[in-house]
Amino acid sequence: MSRVVAISGGVGGAKLALGLYAALPPHSVDVIVNTGDDFEHLGLMISPDVDTALYTLSGLSDPQKGWGRRDETWAFLTALKGIGGDTWFQLGDADLALHVERTRRLRAGEALGVIMQDIAGRLGIKARLLPMSNDPVRTLVDTDEGTLPFQDYFVRRRCEPVVRAIRFRGGQTARVLPDVLDALADPELRAIVICPSNPYLSVDPILSMPEMRAALIAAKAPVIAVTPVIGGKAVKGPTVKIMSELKLEVSAAAVARHYQGLIDGFVLDTEDAALAESFPVPVHVTNTLMKTLGDKKRVAQETLSFAERLRERSL
Amino acid sequence: MSRVVAISGGVGGAKLALGLYAALPPHSVDVIVNTGDDFEHLGLMISPDVDTALYTLSGLSDPQKGWGRRDETWAFLTALKGIGGDTWFQLGDADLALHVERTRRLRAGEALGVIMQDIAGRLGIKARLLPMSNDPVRTLVDTDEGTLPFQDYFVRRRCEPVVRAIRFRGGQTARVLPDVLDALADPELRAIVICPSNPYLSVDPILSMPEMRAALIAAKAPVIAVTPVIGGKAVKGPTVKIMSELKLEVSAAAVARHYQGLIDGFVLDTEDAALAESFPVPVHVTNTLMKTLGDKKRVAQETLSFAERLRERSL
Repeated sequence: MSRVVAISGGVGGAKLALGLYAALPPHSVDVIVNTGDDFEHLGLMISPDVDTALYTLSGLSDPQKGWGRRDETWAFLTALKGIGGDTWFQLGDADLALHVERTRRLRAGEALGVIMQDIAGRLGIKARLLPMSNDPVRTLVDTDEGTLPFQDYFVRRRCEPVVRAIRFRGGQTARVLPDVLDALADPELRAIVICPSNPYLSVDPILSMPEMRAALIAAKAPVIAVTPVIGGKAVKGPTVKIMSELKLEVSAAAVARHYQGLIDGFVLDTEDAALAESFPVPVHVTNTLMKTLGDKKRVAQETLSFAERLRERSL
Repeated sequence: MSRVVAISGGVGGAKLALGLYAALPPHSVDVIVNTGDDFEHLGLMISPDVDTALYTLSGLSDPQKGWGRRDETWAFLTALKGIGGDTWFQLGDADLALHVERTRRLRAGEALGVIMQDIAGRLGIKARLLPMSNDPVRTLVDTDEGTLPFQDYFVRRRCEPVVRAIRFRGGQTARVLPDVLDALADPELRAIVICPSNPYLSVDPILSMPEMRAALIAAKAPVIAVTPVIGGKAVKGPTVKIMSELKLEVSAAAVARHYQGLIDGFVLDTEDAALAESFPVPVHVTNTLMKTLGDKKRVAQETLSFAERLRERSL
């Protein structure tokens, strides 16, 4: 059975990764996840996007928030506040187990990729969960208030400062996870799907590694991006605010241009159908808003059919 | 107002420390606590006896178990088990905040004594909570199954291996916390109370520091030990099992002989009143079983009155 690669940031991307996972037989999806958001907090190594993918694919995620675990409790955070600890980053009691155990294993010398694939297996995930790299790549946001590490910008400051530029420290030299390179080089690969995560904050860290860009360009499979922008609005998060602050046109077309040279097709929302003709790559138009698991599977299936058509066309 | 020093291990000792704290005006008790049980687990620095004292004096302790926090939840441990983590040491969700925050502050270079006094203050404790030392002293238990670190012996193996000897790595060279030395040297000090903790496992690590022994011997205040053994049985824990395995007579008299040279008086249980005449030091006989807060205050008050009589006698 041929495989599919999903490239994902956090919540938005994980929805489509789940759609692909649910639409396909077990063990046919590899999810490459952003680690640019990773940070150390309270001495714990935290990988927010990898964890969102982990919880989403294992069915443990909170359906309301999109991040963190369902049925989470907050006794740790309450007690931490009582003894003067730093509580700006929300850590649920069950979620904490993941950070403590990952930190312990990283400090014992295991690689992030090995740890997360092992934990994904223990949580019953029948897909490969692949952090983009074992090396640190760190997203830095240059703002009107100075340079902020990603979580400071995103969580502590709630994306309020005006973004001037986004940089990825370590991206130029980080090695892509070997399993990621193998997955992208698979001659039978059906499709590479850039999921609807924030292109600038969540996908760009992945693309900041020259080895990753080269592997995507060399891949035989069609690369399809699914729009994170619908009718000039992001489904979730600060994508539109950031596009405005970076003086970009706020539209799906600008996202497609951002990925130009890497993508072979673009999935556009029905609401933006009129834009289709101006696109630099072939377009598939559908309702891309994913609320239910059914929505996610349908968008996944349509994206794969689109990839199939592109593949046939190029043969 | 003159002060009182309590020397305590875990649960048994903390009961009398609480009695002294409750019986006296605020800010008149200094509790010196064993750190020989401290260990690193899951990358966290854990101080079980200091934490038992902290939770007991702040009113947060679990009245049933005696250790840990009341109304504790266990989502962390359940989640940790689900991802293959080590769960032999019980860490509650709220309790975890203390270990994460202490570890963070220790790694940032703060001393254990400073951290614990700060946290004790934040939890409203109007006594000084003094870890015996900022330096690592580690209790090692030589057993018929080899040498075990304290928590391995005590928690993981539930005190099942037969004890041959107990050692305190680092005790010879560890410096006593300066605040402890100041407290013991106070010429106005009313009493130094060795609380009813396990003498071999919980008090001996404190006494393993030559500087501590010298300070106790030099102290002007009477040193009183309160019996951890009643009628040949320990109220809690493995004291009797260990005394048997170390070929000691299982009695309060053996405990008094163990402390000989350091103590000026011994509080013996009513059940053991017949032993009083054979004691090497003056004895006060009372019901030493402490179930209610009232019991704890009464034993505390009787111990202080006894100290007062000894002090008058020596003047």
